[in-house]
Amino acid sequence: MIYFNSDYTEGAHPKVLDMLIKTNMEQTTGYSEDEYCKKARSLIKKACKNDDIDVHFLVGGTQANFTVISASLRPHQGVISAVTGHIHAHETGAVEATGHKIIALPCGADGKITAEQVADVYTAHVEDTNFEHLVQPKMVYISHPTESGAIYSNAELTAISKVCKDSGLLLFVDGARLGYGLSAKGSDVTLKDLCELTDAFYIGGTKVGAMFGEAVVISNSAIKQDFRYIMKQKGAMLAKGRLLGVQFSALFEDELYFEIAKKADEQAYKIADACKEAGLKMFSESVTNQQFIIFPKSLLEDFGKKYAYSFWEKFDDNNSVIRLCTSWATTDENLDQLISDIKNLKI
Amino acid sequence: MIYFNSDYTEGAHPKVLDMLIKTNMEQTTGYSEDEYCKKARSLIKKACKNDDIDVHFLVGGTQANFTVISASLRPHQGVISAVTGHIHAHETGAVEATGHKIIALPCGADGKITAEQVADVYTAHVEDTNFEHLVQPKMVYISHPTESGAIYSNAELTAISKVCKDSGLLLFVDGARLGYGLSAKGSDVTLKDLCELTDAFYIGGTKVGAMFGEAVVISNSAIKQDFRYIMKQKGAMLAKGRLLGVQFSALFEDELYFEIAKKADEQAYKIADACKEAGLKMFSESVTNQQFIIFPKSLLEDFGKKYAYSFWEKFDDNNSVIRLCTSWATTDENLDQLISDIKNLKI
Amino acid sequence: MIYFNSDYTEGAHPKVLDMLIKTNMEQTTGYSEDEYCKKARSLIKKACKNDDIDVHFLVGGTQANFTVISASLRPHQGVISAVTGHIHAHETGAVEATGHKIIALPCGADGKITAEQVADVYTAHVEDTNFEHLVQPKMVYISHPTESGAIYSNAELTAISKVCKDSGLLLFVDGARLGYGLSAKGSDVTLKDLCELTDAFYIGGTKVGAMFGEAVVISNSAIKQDFRYIMKQKGAMLAKGRLLGVQFSALFEDELYFEIAKKADEQAYKIADACKEAGLKMFSESVTNQQFIIFPKSLLEDFGKKYAYSFWEKFDDNNSVIRLCTSWATTDENLDQLISDIKNLKI
Amino acid sequence: MIYFNSDYTEGAHPKVLDMLIKTNMEQTTGYSEDEYCKKARSLIKKACKNDDIDVHFLVGGTQANFTVISASLRPHQGVISAVTGHIHAHETGAVEATGHKIIALPCGADGKITAEQVADVYTAHVEDTNFEHLVQPKMVYISHPTESGAIYSNAELTAISKVCKDSGLLLFVDGARLGYGLSAKGSDVTLKDLCELTDAFYIGGTKVGAMFGEAVVISNSAIKQDFRYIMKQKGAMLAKGRLLGVQFSALFEDELYFEIAKKADEQAYKIADACKEAGLKMFSESVTNQQFIIFPKSLLEDFGKKYAYSFWEKFDDNNSVIRLCTSWATTDENLDQLISDIKNLKI
Repeated sequence: MIYFNSDYTEGAHPKVLDMLIKTNMEQTTGYSEDEYCKKARSLIKKACKNDDIDVHFLVGGTQANFTVISASLRPHQGVISAVTGHIHAHETGAVEATGHKIIALPCGADGKITAEQVADVYTAHVEDTNFEHLVQPKMVYISHPTESGAIYSNAELTAISKVCKDSGLLLFVDGARLGYGLSAKGSDVTLKDLCELTDAFYIGGTKVGAMFGEAVVISNSAIKQDFRYIMKQKGAMLAKGRLLGVQFSALFEDELYFEIAKKADEQAYKIADACKEAGLKMFSESVTNQQFIIFPKSLLEDFGKKYAYSFWEKFDDNNSVIRLCTSWATTDENLDQLISDIKNLKI
Repeated sequence: MIYFNSDYTEGAHPKVLDMLIKTNMEQTTGYSEDEYCKKARSLIKKACKNDDIDVHFLVGGTQANFTVISASLRPHQGVISAVTGHIHAHETGAVEATGHKIIALPCGADGKITAEQVADVYTAHVEDTNFEHLVQPKMVYISHPTESGAIYSNAELTAISKVCKDSGLLLFVDGARLGYGLSAKGSDVTLKDLCELTDAFYIGGTKVGAMFGEAVVISNSAIKQDFRYIMKQKGAMLAKGRLLGVQFSALFEDELYFEIAKKADEQAYKIADACKEAGLKMFSESVTNQQFIIFPKSLLEDFGKKYAYSFWEKFDDNNSVIRLCTSWATTDENLDQLISDIKNLKI
Repeated sequence: MIYFNSDYTEGAHPKVLDMLIKTNMEQTTGYSEDEYCKKARSLIKKACKNDDIDVHFLVGGTQANFTVISASLRPHQGVISAVTGHIHAHETGAVEATGHKIIALPCGADGKITAEQVADVYTAHVEDTNFEHLVQPKMVYISHPTESGAIYSNAELTAISKVCKDSGLLLFVDGARLGYGLSAKGSDVTLKDLCELTDAFYIGGTKVGAMFGEAVVISNSAIKQDFRYIMKQKGAMLAKGRLLGVQFSALFEDELYFEIAKKADEQAYKIADACKEAGLKMFSESVTNQQFIIFPKSLLEDFGKKYAYSFWEKFDDNNSVIRLCTSWATTDENLDQLISDIKNLKI
Repeated sequence: MIYFNSDYTEGAHPKVLDMLIKTNMEQTTGYSEDEYCKKARSLIKKACKNDDIDVHFLVGGTQANFTVISASLRPHQGVISAVTGHIHAHETGAVEATGHKIIALPCGADGKITAEQVADVYTAHVEDTNFEHLVQPKMVYISHPTESGAIYSNAELTAISKVCKDSGLLLFVDGARLGYGLSAKGSDVTLKDLCELTDAFYIGGTKVGAMFGEAVVISNSAIKQDFRYIMKQKGAMLAKGRLLGVQFSALFEDELYFEIAKKADEQAYKIADACKEAGLKMFSESVTNQQFIIFPKSLLEDFGKKYAYSFWEKFDDNNSVIRLCTSWATTDENLDQLISDIKNLKI
């Protein structure tokens, strides 16, 4: 079985693993107060061209999401998200478990929301005669890239950021696959931009070369305050924090993070091209490592014998939407085989 | 100013007030363990024709909602509600503040959801390959009458109840205006039915003759267990609980509760008739004490000088939806004046 | 049976009840935005000699406690309380249910904590090498009078307040029986002082003449912000808010609140005197309406046939601590009978 | 600097690391549904001599604690713990953040609580006339070994378990250092016993050879139900779950887990012996890998230049309690140097 179903089917990028091996028996202090975490913070600040940020290392995406959101909101405040946003759709109510409502906005197949939608939510709230009976919108959550692989342009992000600032809303970007987004063709967003446009975002490691780990970057001083307490409370402060420092040092030394993301994106484009060549339609236009394909149900069983894929949703009676992912770990050999098999499909 | 904006603009029905006055200086034990609460429980059981229920007295509707829901669910479980349901739309995230997600379903202007919708949510959940990443639907919340004054038929409630039982879901009915629903023309639902079809529901007092108070009726033994602990934790156990016992005794002695509800419903029908006669269109078909009218914006300012109404929502550029309510306290004098003024509107 | 077991065995003070009767059929807007609430706020501000406070009306004490605390703290912050404090001992974990730990301090039979204890907690926290692994102390909760009827002197409160200000802690005073405390012999604390020394406190109505209700007074601007949202979320915003406005107007017109508290305190002193005369020992020195008496178990059964009392705790094998309360409702007739019976006890 | 301050100063045991390296590029399904997790579950069941348990792999101890507790309790229920218990003292209110109070019991320097204490809490609760105003004790949390390195005997555990069963309480054992406890001299407790005596416990990996990870073992069917949903909600379901399966497979193949724990325990005994020989007093009698020593403050500065230690608490004006830990990673070379330096202390 060849796995294209997700971007977390292998362990760590060899360079990351090497660093873990090399440092394994070193003794360090715990809880991310070691030299490797310091170094990783410093490398990330450099990559962000920003010294006025706090960088924290957490273990996973759901954890990063609810820890940041819980650190940011008062009890009556909620977070705006696309209805397909990971916090709304795939985290078993983790945000609600910290007491906060998610204000879900409709979105297209690309999973993006717009500055205008955010502005409308805010205006509707403040103009409601019973506004105190409603959850107060206080934060906007977006994923970059989105759940369906789309990216925001710099102009779109800037517009959302402006609405947020004008309305006293916080902007938080889920970057579980950030590398694949920043390295995508047509992307004009940088880490530096994210520091300036958002109050907090994170640099996903788990899906982009790390064994595990997410680097949360905070620009907003209110969220910065006491963030480590809240990490500890949420089970998000790893005892051997240096494991995260070591991994992010490896990823941000020599721009490894971007290099491997770019390669995976390009591999994904080849899958998309092959699909189109074979006569398959794409469900959404993704420029990142996830590709969403409208696949005839009659062919899926055979395809699934050789390739692990993700079932995304029903398209119509004859077709399913499936997801195929590349990652830092995708081998050209497996890719070539997949492409060849796609091209040979009898559509 | 004459108030038709809501059904909580006055104090208590005179008979309820009389009982409060008469018992004012009596000494009783606290926390609803007094003789008046016992009597009220007994009267409600009789009205329900059911001895196998627990009856608890709480202060308000939001409190009743989150106390019952919190008592019923484990952390990963959520509650299904119409998108217009009070818990989703007008309680400042009170349910989420207890840790639970609301799974919102679309609904028409009547605010009702269907057995089929519930079954679909359940099926979609159990068939999802990643079901453990989703909030588990465990309870269905409906209002009877709904936020927009509609009522469920016995057949509809029975169908929802059956889906719930078949799927291991709990059914909870918000009865903040229950009297107006049970007394509505065409209603074929009784308190006895509610005991049998639901796991918990409440008999709203605040809007139906009481000064304040809601009587929660529980059929399900798992929700019954330790319910008073959870009331206390949620601030829902009144020290002078006898105030609630006294009031519900007054309301369920001689069927006062239903008598006053019926009268208010009939007053509301007269408003609806007058509106139609005047050429106004109703936003939804309500058979209860709330009427929702599509009202020309050009006439609203003048109308609002004399009558307090509730703005419900924008209808189009020229019209608003407004709500007019009757209640146990609506005088025929005020009603006649309103009807006459509506009929004289220059539509 | 004559009830001296608590101070919530009757309904409302006649003057309060009269105002409720008189205003019963008036129509007002809801949610405490009516004229009676305005008036009550204005009277309380006058009594506090302070215009820079926010006044909100809630239904009960547990509710007031967790609403204020939840409005004040971030997730990792906790509240310091005497181990006998109501929030720690008798609210079924209501504060924890909003996510916050109570940091419990030992205290004597008087239920008081000291500025020094608070300073020690703060210092221990900031000096702990693992402070981020500990709940951050952020608020001090005291009751005035305490659970066992003792009062703080102005000097003691000022000292606690100073430690709080110096350490960035908030000070919150539970005033469920505040009237009895401010009117006690030897008290040198005023409402004005409380506004200046605390960040929030409340004026208990339920136990001091109201049918129900607590007036929360907030000096701190961060707690003021959006407080009504949080009230709504916690079920603490009464639909017919005017009921609370009416009651607190009655209580603060002509200083009724203090007059009835003073009388109850004096009645309580007579009970204490009678006990001492009879040879009974007091468990604690209370100058308020609750008296705690070390009572021989052999005499309790007979005593309990005529008088309802509260069992407080075991004292030793032969004696129990019991509580006897007066209130605004205690009649001189019942009091005289009790005193006479106490004096006749065969100790 | 040589680190004896904690048992998480290095990475993973070489055999664990080897398995991670060897499997790094294998493709597996996510979320602990892979073959390595299956194998690890099977090995643990074998080690437990019990097939009727569920085994789940989580990342860290705080996370394991609040996930199990949150999965087990209804909102009004609390968990009994020694006042020094990790959940009470060192997790930034993680359990309270899920809504539950910790009922803290006094304990000696050994950190243990007794069956009698638990029985007393239960009895006091059910006999309290206001029991519904108190948090209902529902679970007992103990650590084995305790925070201060002591172990429970089989008889002690059996007695606590019996009280729990008799009183309807759940028993949960924090086994962050379980290996060091089960392998300690004098221990008569086995994994099999823990399965039978507790409702849930966990086998700590982070401090006993794993890079990270805790294996939660559940015997109680109510806690088993839907546990994976709750893991996901709490951020405790690792995307690359196989990392945990691989590690626990390595640890439970050939009893590596016990072998390395036993060696560390024996190294710790040598430290204790050296201390006693040098004239130092032990703060508590620990038979596991942590040793607590009353250390003259005058000597600490010099000692701290060479060795990292944990400051535990102040003992008196002249002495501090410090903790020295061994672990699977402690080298004999470092140990010999420490022992020699301790013996040369000028007490």
